[in-house]
Amino acid sequence: MYLIQSIIRPEKMLHVTEALSAIGVQALTKFPVIGRGKQCGLKVGNINYKDLPKEMIFTMVDASQKDAVVKAIIDAARTEDGNHGDGRVFVLPVAEAYTIRSGQQDIEA
Amino acid sequence: MYLIQSIIRPEKMLHVTEALSAIGVQALTKFPVIGRGKQCGLKVGNINYKDLPKEMIFTMVDASQKDAVVKAIIDAARTEDGNHGDGRVFVLPVAEAYTIRSGQQDIEA
Amino acid sequence: MYLIQSIIRPEKMLHVTEALSAIGVQALTKFPVIGRGKQCGLKVGNINYKDLPKEMIFTMVDASQKDAVVKAIIDAARTEDGNHGDGRVFVLPVAEAYTIRSGQQDIEA
Repeated sequence: MYLIQSIIRPEKMLHVTEALSAIGVQALTKFPVIGRGKQCGLKVGNINYKDLPKEMIFTMVDASQKDAVVKAIIDAARTEDGNHGDGRVFVLPVAEAYTIRSGQQDIEA
Repeated sequence: MYLIQSIIRPEKMLHVTEALSAIGVQALTKFPVIGRGKQCGLKVGNINYKDLPKEMIFTMVDASQKDAVVKAIIDAARTEDGNHGDGRVFVLPVAEAYTIRSGQQDIEA
Repeated sequence: MYLIQSIIRPEKMLHVTEALSAIGVQALTKFPVIGRGKQCGLKVGNINYKDLPKEMIFTMVDASQKDAVVKAIIDAARTEDGNHGDGRVFVLPVAEAYTIRSGQQDIEA
């Protein structure tokens, strides 16, 4: 199992959640964050905006879903030609996952 | 060492922190998030509430504490009969952990 | 690759981002959290402040950068003599990382 952490542009949130829904992934957790990339923010005239609003999305997936979910997020979150600030996707290994309602541990599909 | 990421109902926060405290785990980090599960939110009449408020809790544990902490969180966060929306617990491997005050790296207990 | 999760005092944020910038790490994600350590908050008179504001910083690094980044964060986030509440640094293994702009997967440096 993997935890996919995606940092995206806020205006791409609906695209991403609909793209995930279309491939059967409904469950996710999201929250607003502040992000900057390697280019250290956005320069407008003399002002350097280092702190730009982004959204973080956490999605748990089975190994069998991982590549399709990563692709769906990237395709939905990218701006038309791809621009700095489009964000990043990190895939973290998960040792165990549980559903609180049932108390049951997930079995890898 | 493991990082336990729990997504719970906001109204269960005090139950969970007290359950953790009762087994000797005081240290935690928490923040509000928006979550949905496999059932994609809550349907009330014709309205589908896809974005429901949850709380995320991060807890670092030694391998020896992991199972007891997961159980304590699940038992404290579950509604009486267990319901969709009670949340999830993810256990992530941690490579290294440090205390900033001392600069020291944690040694696994 | 590693995801470094740092929990720091809010007033140390600028010190930490400048220390990271000085060693060539510009990219980061940050968000406000509530934290408490092993001492379970701060006691002032009869009142126990269990919920203290902290900032979380997520930084992705190559294996070759890990130790320097951890050291930079600790040195910049620690109060003069080191105090409870200075925070923690967790290093999590990352399986894969992608840049949304290009769709490309990171290659470990």
